[in-house]
Amino acid sequence: MRMYDIIKKKKEGGKLSREEIEFFVNGYTNGLIPDEQISALLMAICFRSMDMEETAMLTQAITSSGEVTDLSPIEGIKVDKHSSGGVGDKTTLIVAPLVAACGVKVAKMSGRGLGHTGGTIDKLESIPHFRTSLSPAEFFDAVKKAGLAVAGQTGDLAPADKKLYALRDVTATVDCLPLIASSIMGKKLASGADAIVLDVKVGNGSFNKTTEDGLALADAMVEIGTRASKKMIAVISDMSRPLGRQIGNALEVKEAVSLLRAEEADPALKELCLTLAASMLFLAEKGNEEECRMLAENALLSGEGYLALRRMVEAQGGDVRALDDPLLLPSAEGYDVLSPAEGYITDMNTERYGTAALMLGAGRNCKEDKIDAAAGITVYKKTGDYVKRGEAIARLYASDTARFEDSEKTLLNALSFGTTKPNLPPIIHRVIKGGAL
Amino acid sequence: MRMYDIIKKKKEGGKLSREEIEFFVNGYTNGLIPDEQISALLMAICFRSMDMEETAMLTQAITSSGEVTDLSPIEGIKVDKHSSGGVGDKTTLIVAPLVAACGVKVAKMSGRGLGHTGGTIDKLESIPHFRTSLSPAEFFDAVKKAGLAVAGQTGDLAPADKKLYALRDVTATVDCLPLIASSIMGKKLASGADAIVLDVKVGNGSFNKTTEDGLALADAMVEIGTRASKKMIAVISDMSRPLGRQIGNALEVKEAVSLLRAEEADPALKELCLTLAASMLFLAEKGNEEECRMLAENALLSGEGYLALRRMVEAQGGDVRALDDPLLLPSAEGYDVLSPAEGYITDMNTERYGTAALMLGAGRNCKEDKIDAAAGITVYKKTGDYVKRGEAIARLYASDTARFEDSEKTLLNALSFGTTKPNLPPIIHRVIKGGAL
Repeated sequence: MRMYDIIKKKKEGGKLSREEIEFFVNGYTNGLIPDEQISALLMAICFRSMDMEETAMLTQAITSSGEVTDLSPIEGIKVDKHSSGGVGDKTTLIVAPLVAACGVKVAKMSGRGLGHTGGTIDKLESIPHFRTSLSPAEFFDAVKKAGLAVAGQTGDLAPADKKLYALRDVTATVDCLPLIASSIMGKKLASGADAIVLDVKVGNGSFNKTTEDGLALADAMVEIGTRASKKMIAVISDMSRPLGRQIGNALEVKEAVSLLRAEEADPALKELCLTLAASMLFLAEKGNEEECRMLAENALLSGEGYLALRRMVEAQGGDVRALDDPLLLPSAEGYDVLSPAEGYITDMNTERYGTAALMLGAGRNCKEDKIDAAAGITVYKKTGDYVKRGEAIARLYASDTARFEDSEKTLLNALSFGTTKPNLPPIIHRVIKGGAL
Repeated sequence: MRMYDIIKKKKEGGKLSREEIEFFVNGYTNGLIPDEQISALLMAICFRSMDMEETAMLTQAITSSGEVTDLSPIEGIKVDKHSSGGVGDKTTLIVAPLVAACGVKVAKMSGRGLGHTGGTIDKLESIPHFRTSLSPAEFFDAVKKAGLAVAGQTGDLAPADKKLYALRDVTATVDCLPLIASSIMGKKLASGADAIVLDVKVGNGSFNKTTEDGLALADAMVEIGTRASKKMIAVISDMSRPLGRQIGNALEVKEAVSLLRAEEADPALKELCLTLAASMLFLAEKGNEEECRMLAENALLSGEGYLALRRMVEAQGGDVRALDDPLLLPSAEGYDVLSPAEGYITDMNTERYGTAALMLGAGRNCKEDKIDAAAGITVYKKTGDYVKRGEAIARLYASDTARFEDSEKTLLNALSFGTTKPNLPPIIHRVIKGGAL
């Protein structure tokens, strides 16, 4: 088999066989096939696409390129959750405790973020002494003790995806449905769960600019998972506004704690978290859909969810006092951004809000960047809100106050004002269930 | 400027600017842009194509990536000739002497072949002691003395093309009109001639499988040359049968000598050579088209063309006795291939004839391979000929007689037989002239 022939076949619109897909994925992972041949193939795939069978085979090859986590030491149905990523997305910090509080073990491997704000791991690390690097034994022990654990990926999960993603990133081949779907699902299938809930974002703060793009991606991922015998649910959720009120690592921990303690809750964030938690409980066979929704709501109202978060933080070495008293979390100087106009906010470019947070130090430009855990944005006003000139629309936080100026400019550039109140999209656009559900 | 943005622009169907094209060609030549980004761009170009302006700018960037030969020491209009390559193509050995015999200086840089048979340089090297590696001074001296010289490329002509071609060769991006046209013309424009005659082959022994492909390529190259202020003619010639009767390096020299001595001539080969020679004379302003055709025919009939070849071989150190007595050229054991059927040859896969010659040792599989100058095929019967079962249809030659078996199989596989005499395409399909001619 020659790589040249595989490129040529796809270039001419042919369908790749399982052998051909395994040949190029394994050859690339092992360093036997050079970057330039793979990037040519990826570009050809961008133009010719892959059908569902090819995409599923590519996913499997990515999964099989490294270890597959064995979660069998944990009893019961293991449910994983994945978010396609957005601005202010702290759902894992809320959903995992709610689900664990209902008696479903959550053993979640999570990544660090390369983007506006950190990933779940970075957010958790803003809790003093919280340990995210756990050995497999420590990880399983934490799940046993606390009912849930969230740790950084260990071992060699889906190494093909790491290489392929790095290559796509420099060759303008990221934006391609079968490549996106196989990349996400290749890693998810390697994480060893029995069931997966996908939170697929749509809107200007997400990768999927249109609802159609998001639906197509969700459909593909649900189908891939179903073919791999996983129980699947995808929630298509709105990301045309930041999720919740806080963007930034410690700020998002605070917001999650506040919601779990039923002190204060952004309605959209709460609705999404309950939907995701109920979906995970449903896949864990805790009841029918209504029952699972009730379980999730009760876990929130009763404070059991908060206690589960507290158990997790304790089991992973973190200082639980920083949950009970969020003033103990990292904090920084604040700066109010005032509205330059009066009227309704008719649109906010959510991605630019993410960039503004990144500029404050909340995220990474490159892998080596250090995150400022205290940096970020509190969003006072969103699309649909009426503001007066000079009214605070957001508050910026940064340990380095020199960063406020550029961030403020970016944030103001993200806003449109008008005299008519705009229609707001619902937080949940659609829920898609895998074949047998 | 970022390479990523250039890839993305072309992927989305945009038109690249001169700055963008120069950025990627120079960046690649200098090693600042990696293979994987260039191959992704090349694949995107295969799908999105380039318009004539982009293609002309790409050609210029390739030409400017290295030295441009200065032919000004040679008086008069310098005319170059280029063939897109085929099986049994020995036209340069005939056309250059005919043109020189009419008083037009021919200073030709030629390449070695990587394919069925050698390039012109390899063919000439089958003449004992013939030197193809000349210093610039020796080269100009030979042109002055003999009126013509054919030497291997020296110096650093179009280095961007070498790198781009090597990359295209492994990434299935060879087959793309703007890339083919800019590659050929990028080198041709660097060779320093004032006018260029292109011999663009069409048919199953050439790169252009259909006449339409060949016409489109010829049109593009004529337009590129015209935009670069070169006088251009393209001859679209047939390559659905091997050209002439001989395939192989010394064998082709013999056939060229035989034609120039007016001893024996394949009519199609003769017609093509006269057309190409007349076109070169026309571009050198030796008269109108009819006059130039007459000049070429006279050079052939009078034996002046043969004398010009003899002068060239002498000036480049070759043994002219091997021209006067071709038995002194390398020769090898022969083996007749007998017809397995009776009837008309209705089709011959010319590329397979080339492969059969390669298997005998007439060509190179890789740059390092040594050529057997004596190896090759004498073609007795071609498409349109009637053969009896057991009649010799070709004779194979090889210094290593163990090579006959596989070569014979390949050759027999190339033939189709039938009861109806097939229609034969003309040797000249079309002649295209540049803007001002």
